[in-house]
Amino acid sequence: MENTENKDNLLATINNPNDLKKLNRQELPLLSQEIRDKIIQTISQNGGHLASSLGAVDLAIAVHYVFNSPSDKLLWDVGHQAYAHKILTERKETFCSIRTFNGISGFPKISESAYDSFGSGHASTSISAALGFSCARDLKNENYNVVAIIGDGSMTGGLAFEGLQNAGYLKKKMLVILNDNEMFISQKVGAVSDYFAKIVTAEKVQKTENKIMEVINKFHSLSAPFEKFIRRAKTMFSPGMLFEEMGFAYIGPIQGHNINNLILILDKVKNMKGPVLLHIITKKGKGYEPAEKDPVKYHGIGKFDIETGKSFSVKNTSYTQIFSEVLIKLAQKNEKIVAVTAAMSEGTGLSSFAKTFPDRYFDTGIAESHAVTFCAGLAASGMLPVCAIYSTFMQRAIDNVIHDVCLQNLPVIFILDRAGLVGEDGGTHHGVFDLSYLKYIPNLIIMSPCDENELQDMLKTAFSVKKPCAIRYPRGAVTGVDLSRDYNILETGKAQVLKEALDICFLAIGNQVATCLKAAEILEKQTIKAGVVNMRFLKPLDENLLKELALKIKNFITVEENVIIGGLGESVKSCLCNSGVNVECIGIADEFIEHGDVNILREICGLTAENTAKKAFELLKKQITAF
Amino acid sequence: MENTENKDNLLATINNPNDLKKLNRQELPLLSQEIRDKIIQTISQNGGHLASSLGAVDLAIAVHYVFNSPSDKLLWDVGHQAYAHKILTERKETFCSIRTFNGISGFPKISESAYDSFGSGHASTSISAALGFSCARDLKNENYNVVAIIGDGSMTGGLAFEGLQNAGYLKKKMLVILNDNEMFISQKVGAVSDYFAKIVTAEKVQKTENKIMEVINKFHSLSAPFEKFIRRAKTMFSPGMLFEEMGFAYIGPIQGHNINNLILILDKVKNMKGPVLLHIITKKGKGYEPAEKDPVKYHGIGKFDIETGKSFSVKNTSYTQIFSEVLIKLAQKNEKIVAVTAAMSEGTGLSSFAKTFPDRYFDTGIAESHAVTFCAGLAASGMLPVCAIYSTFMQRAIDNVIHDVCLQNLPVIFILDRAGLVGEDGGTHHGVFDLSYLKYIPNLIIMSPCDENELQDMLKTAFSVKKPCAIRYPRGAVTGVDLSRDYNILETGKAQVLKEALDICFLAIGNQVATCLKAAEILEKQTIKAGVVNMRFLKPLDENLLKELALKIKNFITVEENVIIGGLGESVKSCLCNSGVNVECIGIADEFIEHGDVNILREICGLTAENTAKKAFELLKKQITAF
Repeated sequence: MENTENKDNLLATINNPNDLKKLNRQELPLLSQEIRDKIIQTISQNGGHLASSLGAVDLAIAVHYVFNSPSDKLLWDVGHQAYAHKILTERKETFCSIRTFNGISGFPKISESAYDSFGSGHASTSISAALGFSCARDLKNENYNVVAIIGDGSMTGGLAFEGLQNAGYLKKKMLVILNDNEMFISQKVGAVSDYFAKIVTAEKVQKTENKIMEVINKFHSLSAPFEKFIRRAKTMFSPGMLFEEMGFAYIGPIQGHNINNLILILDKVKNMKGPVLLHIITKKGKGYEPAEKDPVKYHGIGKFDIETGKSFSVKNTSYTQIFSEVLIKLAQKNEKIVAVTAAMSEGTGLSSFAKTFPDRYFDTGIAESHAVTFCAGLAASGMLPVCAIYSTFMQRAIDNVIHDVCLQNLPVIFILDRAGLVGEDGGTHHGVFDLSYLKYIPNLIIMSPCDENELQDMLKTAFSVKKPCAIRYPRGAVTGVDLSRDYNILETGKAQVLKEALDICFLAIGNQVATCLKAAEILEKQTIKAGVVNMRFLKPLDENLLKELALKIKNFITVEENVIIGGLGESVKSCLCNSGVNVECIGIADEFIEHGDVNILREICGLTAENTAKKAFELLKKQITAF
Repeated sequence: MENTENKDNLLATINNPNDLKKLNRQELPLLSQEIRDKIIQTISQNGGHLASSLGAVDLAIAVHYVFNSPSDKLLWDVGHQAYAHKILTERKETFCSIRTFNGISGFPKISESAYDSFGSGHASTSISAALGFSCARDLKNENYNVVAIIGDGSMTGGLAFEGLQNAGYLKKKMLVILNDNEMFISQKVGAVSDYFAKIVTAEKVQKTENKIMEVINKFHSLSAPFEKFIRRAKTMFSPGMLFEEMGFAYIGPIQGHNINNLILILDKVKNMKGPVLLHIITKKGKGYEPAEKDPVKYHGIGKFDIETGKSFSVKNTSYTQIFSEVLIKLAQKNEKIVAVTAAMSEGTGLSSFAKTFPDRYFDTGIAESHAVTFCAGLAASGMLPVCAIYSTFMQRAIDNVIHDVCLQNLPVIFILDRAGLVGEDGGTHHGVFDLSYLKYIPNLIIMSPCDENELQDMLKTAFSVKKPCAIRYPRGAVTGVDLSRDYNILETGKAQVLKEALDICFLAIGNQVATCLKAAEILEKQTIKAGVVNMRFLKPLDENLLKELALKIKNFITVEENVIIGGLGESVKSCLCNSGVNVECIGIADEFIEHGDVNILREICGLTAENTAKKAFELLKKQITAF
């Protein structure tokens, strides 16, 4: 990294895209470096999506130089590459707060800025939304440009395909920029990535570019011949047949770090009619050597040392790791076990499984729906598939869970990692709905471990029941209990009484069991004897135990890191409704939760031992007062 | 239709695919006609998916002649075209019971027959599942063939694309037969269909076929040259570039009603390595003139007269029609209103809207996820989109509802038609989960009308609140009240007391309000005074009213045509849990419901006035006994 002190500070002059347009083109590469420095500086403190954002700095500058945001609409797919966009659009000063509580979001967000035309976080949505903007524009006889910027990874999602093909059919004017950094979150996995690799060789990029620049020099104004040339060039090189067949005019591939070339081309493309796909090649981590060398590590990273690139975050053992290790052990004994993920190989811990059993491991790319139905096919042919997908992304495959797995009662094991609050990624990424979006599905067993030993047991249990199962656990560190070497099969639908109740009883699931144990300790100091039940299974719910307890105890509090609606809280209230007891619920309220440190968020949601104890105290007090 | 009496009865000799293989090839067209007659005969009595099944009879015969089901795996996408498959696979005798209660299903179903390798009902799942079968086969070192048969409509779904691209990458041996009947459920809508149309001209089909037959005659054994030829032919005609780019060997287009040609080609293709896509052209309704002429009408049809083709079913005014009419009226006054569906133009009643406002109507093809995110884009640009999708198919777009619409609090109105039990289409199609899969989503308002006037009001209300809204209503006839000419804006979250309660109170939503009114009448004869509340809004729930009522009434029964888990029942129990009252719930139990006449199914699920009254009576009796 170069030292910013030695340069003119161009960034200081820029607050919004209009300021950017005042720079001459020769200055832009310098600005690019300044923005990179700012990103590296900030993310080394706050953590974030470094590699993809560095890769898109030049593109963001070029796009804002050519288009007029916010009247022109820019839609950043996934959005984790949009840091430069944020810096260029009135958020330079607040950029230091990115991903922190009350700070700016790590993703585009309508409510944060008029420059963020459409919020994102999950992949592959930009083309569909951009088509919406284009259709609305034409209906209203308005005249803005619509630009979707989408990575090669997101392009593998079925939603992107649906968007492309509908856009290709409707023939609305819109630009899709395929930001091809030759890199999915984990690795190339699909035919489309093979296809990209095939058409993107350095040679070809140079050749296309030379041709395009040649023609641009010939036709300085918007010109039909330019469009004709583009189409002819396409036929010559025929690299973008896939997109041409979908009804898009394809241009590319173009090198994505030559800002001035990008501007020249965007300037022309901007005036083309109908849907255009511009294919540019960028480098993840561009401009920061450690990230260029290991873009997977720097895809999403915590605090790190800029000079060495070393991460500051101490890696505690995570649930992800425990899952990874147990699965490998179980798979060694049972060759029917196979593992599937959807571009979350590192994140779900399956990369070790992939190394140990390359033939039994499948990464579908960003294609959660397919991953689940694929598992149904595997299970229908006698395999025992484990489908590991983050809680928030499993939202994309619910019909597949219902229609392909559970309706057919097939033994697929769903591993929902990152269940609960995820922290800095915020509202689009919290895994706080899974208990609710799974609970109503017949045949499905739903569990959540209170600690790492129980995760081991639950995985073993899931393989034993030969039914659809879901296991959800949080992001981050395990509790630190001594790890048992034996795994036990748990009795399906049986909860575990950890502490006998006298005055009040906590009913908790997953990581909130620990919260309740602490709350019980707090209450004990006030001579209130609170029981703690580890529910283990959301479904089947241990109704017998609940009803038994209700004969002795009059006050219950459920605690879960999930929305209360449709979650454990409603299940318990439902079960005990006619028992004449009091049930209060702690969990996520009926609203979307912002980003920020997970401990702050838990505090806000009341998911702390202190609040749990307080709630118990108040419930008891209310009744004493009532007497 | 020809008279079957005048022919040798070939079908009589066939119980399974082995019997089929005993026929000589010249007899197959005759068999095809017999099977068609049987299908027409049966469906004229039972109703069903006539047009697509007639179109696939020749294909089913050819596939079963060449492949060895059940050891070879056949996966019928959607599955409504698989009637001939059922007849050929030991279900000739039971075919007369198709779609009736306790009869065979209208879709492939693992639990019904070993010949049904994978169940279906929703579109675009077959390629993903087939890839699962292929991977499992190779892992187990087994040696069967895997064949996915998918229509051109299903091919537009993103899931099919995800499956194709993963299969193209994994290079497993599998055959995808694209059964292109040039017809989606409503009409062609996407670039892919344009693309199909472009490559499929009669001329081209003939040309390709001549070439392929020529080569087949040259190479009688499985031969590398055959494969080479196919690839060469591809380059010559270049019709299947899209699939070739995805990693599939593309063969076609082939005429799909020449059984003997089909057999010759399948025989060769069967031995090709890697993923192959065979593109065949068929005619929906083939062999039955009325269906050939109007395949949309005969896509799914009730009882009809074979001679005239006339439908016997008396069409009562449906909720769908009311929605259609009201939407047009509202759209006449507000040009921001646009309508979107996903290949359900007729089914959702939007075809009239499309005629009235062609520019403001969008059919995305079978692409529910895209449809919802597209609506989010429209709404973000100031339009008021109505997204009409059947309840069961909205399961495919839940993440889009959460992440793109509700998180951004955009005013998209979801119209969930076919909510509740749908009858003969069965388990894959019942719309009994929507209240549960929507309820936990923040910002979303969820309503269900008790009659057609309330539907009018709710639609007007939805446009007035400028927030995400969902309105769910059942398939079939409205209640028949006098239709009001004025539409009222309902107060959000307010229920309506229809009948004051003394002994017990029914809390109902949607079509079950009528059930409760009848139940109250029954109880009145036994001098039990039951109240009836039309809840109107599942969310926000009228908690104030419920709590007020709970001060006076001790017994409540919720009634809904949705699973109780996560639905109204749980919401009410949750709300009243600490009130010391008794709440019982009537609704769909925690299991998948089979197919059959909707009245039989409602009887089984207890969704009748008689059962509702009985349940009330029992609840009251239990308490009298308790005293």
